[in-house]
Amino acid sequence: MNRIYFDNAATTALDPRVLEAMMPYLTEKFGNPSSIYSYGRESRLAIENARKSVAKILNAHPAEIFFTSGGTESSNTAIAAALHNLGCRHIISSPIEHHATSHTVEYYHRREGVALSWVKLLPDGHIDLEDLERLLAASKDRTLVSLMHANNEIGNLLDLHAVGNICKKYNAIFHSDTVQTVGHYPFDLRNTPVHFITGAGHKFHGPKGVGILYVNENVQIQPLLHGGAQERNMRAGTENLYGIVGFAKALELAMASHAEDAAYIRELKQYMADQLKEKVGHVEFNGDAFGRSLYTVLNVSFPKSEKSEMILFNMDINGICASGGSACTSGADLGSHVIREVNSNPNQVAVRFSFCRQNTKEEIDAVVEKLNGML
Amino acid sequence: MNRIYFDNAATTALDPRVLEAMMPYLTEKFGNPSSIYSYGRESRLAIENARKSVAKILNAHPAEIFFTSGGTESSNTAIAAALHNLGCRHIISSPIEHHATSHTVEYYHRREGVALSWVKLLPDGHIDLEDLERLLAASKDRTLVSLMHANNEIGNLLDLHAVGNICKKYNAIFHSDTVQTVGHYPFDLRNTPVHFITGAGHKFHGPKGVGILYVNENVQIQPLLHGGAQERNMRAGTENLYGIVGFAKALELAMASHAEDAAYIRELKQYMADQLKEKVGHVEFNGDAFGRSLYTVLNVSFPKSEKSEMILFNMDINGICASGGSACTSGADLGSHVIREVNSNPNQVAVRFSFCRQNTKEEIDAVVEKLNGML
Ligand SMILES: Cc1ncc(COP(=O)(O)O)c(C=O)c1O
Ligand SMILES: Cc1ncc(COP(=O)(O)O)c(C=O)c1O
Repeated sequence: MNRIYFDNAATTALDPRVLEAMMPYLTEKFGNPSSIYSYGRESRLAIENARKSVAKILNAHPAEIFFTSGGTESSNTAIAAALHNLGCRHIISSPIEHHATSHTVEYYHRREGVALSWVKLLPDGHIDLEDLERLLAASKDRTLVSLMHANNEIGNLLDLHAVGNICKKYNAIFHSDTVQTVGHYPFDLRNTPVHFITGAGHKFHGPKGVGILYVNENVQIQPLLHGGAQERNMRAGTENLYGIVGFAKALELAMASHAEDAAYIRELKQYMADQLKEKVGHVEFNGDAFGRSLYTVLNVSFPKSEKSEMILFNMDINGICASGGSACTSGADLGSHVIREVNSNPNQVAVRFSFCRQNTKEEIDAVVEKLNGML
Repeated sequence: MNRIYFDNAATTALDPRVLEAMMPYLTEKFGNPSSIYSYGRESRLAIENARKSVAKILNAHPAEIFFTSGGTESSNTAIAAALHNLGCRHIISSPIEHHATSHTVEYYHRREGVALSWVKLLPDGHIDLEDLERLLAASKDRTLVSLMHANNEIGNLLDLHAVGNICKKYNAIFHSDTVQTVGHYPFDLRNTPVHFITGAGHKFHGPKGVGILYVNENVQIQPLLHGGAQERNMRAGTENLYGIVGFAKALELAMASHAEDAAYIRELKQYMADQLKEKVGHVEFNGDAFGRSLYTVLNVSFPKSEKSEMILFNMDINGICASGGSACTSGADLGSHVIREVNSNPNQVAVRFSFCRQNTKEEIDAVVEKLNGML
């Protein structure tokens, strides 16, 4: 049985060209980038070239890019820094953030007594910007606004500029979890009013275990992990050399073919939606699926029945990889906090299908046909 | 010119057999370990098998082993947890810890007002256990003792049992940075009175960007990085699948041939010391070099002269990789805080040579010969 992988928002296959770029560092070029001899400096150079390449693609300064172990560490670093180094005593976030944000802000709220407000959502799952502005206007303390660029479950996209401008007006710090958009959308950080964004290599055919944190040059922060002087004193620990090289290569490749890939994947998403409506019927799409939404994600609600409650299980048996909640929670099977927020219908089950450039219409046809038997 | 790599305490070459074990996960087996479908469960299984293997080798329970991004993150996690979850309000550490410990304890001392004491050293660089006991006896608050198992610059080894037993007597929490000994020495954690130990894959021919934290089952802690439920809620973030598989494989290989390798490398160390004394003369060895010391590390002081001050530079030109301080600080070239503590002679320059099973006596002969011209 051929596997059909429609869970690219959870993780993606490593691009063979990325692995190829990593291989020299997985074999002969293993020198410690912090060593002073030339052999270590070769590794250092590879890291600095990776940083420059990432910075260029995002239109940032190299000094604004820090390599981390992933999106989670990046968001944890940004949030801690906003509180500990930038004087924020109030956090505004949304009820549909990834746990890397929501669990972190809840932790500091509990542990350090930082005030925490949840901004309201509009019916389509977008952030209610008027409510955000009301919350900021009423805030007595300096505030951190932490709102994700794209929701990993329903795909809704935030207008970074609109939110950034509101934050500016109230002198708030703005962190955006961009893990689902870095490598999938062009960025122009020099002209975007945001203090922190994050990325994770494995979301765009790069390696797992490596990510970036962008820190706007106008803010000065301290590290979350203390130790050696790596990453200009911002992220201690021997550098994940091959991971960093792979991150940069994956981002280069992703953005080089971004326009075609996006158009192709967007068509897949639309095709799947159309086929579901035509061949399955009684489906609903969660979030602003065909408006401001990730082209990679289609979140579908099916009518609940004894059979459809087993849909993830049955897809698995049929070799179809898709997910209910996000990967990080689906193991625990608590259902999705995001779907609960945007879809109050208890008589539905939600499935997230997420695509990449390797997927095909034939795969969609096969999945739609199989789904018919699972409902 | 052939490169001679005598800086294995900074980082080691990835063993080709380790890379081979990682390859399936760098290619076709990329599923997210937290996904519910069977394809993700294969990844999960790989991680759980890695955990079991590591636990078995260290004689710990699998539930006591957590995968992290490296030694630095592991020590940061242990120290934060001792303070935030285990009620420690006083830290006793040593002046020759790695920065992953010293900068972390200094951070919490400054930021949270935790008391901080530095235990005295004996003339040979070992920890003065009587002073440790005095400090503990005088401590009013619950105390975290953070002392490294082996010093990465001079090689001195701590008696984990002796320190653990003193800690037990005073109900202190004991964290030991074992980054230089995991993969180089046998461990029997079930019978060792320690709460936290750490490891980093790249120190024993495993991958960079992955480490472990051992947390004794008798202590309950919270994560440092918040987010998804990975690592049983103890370390959020999509797992570094190949890194974890590689860590376990490297540890298996290291311990399978440990006895022979240790004997072989110990002989190299002794041979280098003998050759230096015979052919170079006027050398001193820092720390307890031929007593309780890492068999991998030889730290040599040469008489200071205009020429010898350029020794690292000249070794580099001659293709010899060795280091002054630890890799994490040598870039900044502030000299070594460890050497300052154990060797007060300002008329010497210190060089650390550190070996692995790939090194040979022929390489040592070549280095000793070249060194003669650099002094
Ligand atoms: C003794 C010791 N502790 C901690 C570390 C930090 O490990 P890592 O750089 O892998 O985070 C190192 C090596 O750099 C070390 O030698
Ligand atoms: C929106 C979002 N934020 C953060 C993360 C966390 O990234 P990582 O698991 O790579 O740390 C993910 C993915 O898991 C995500 O989808």
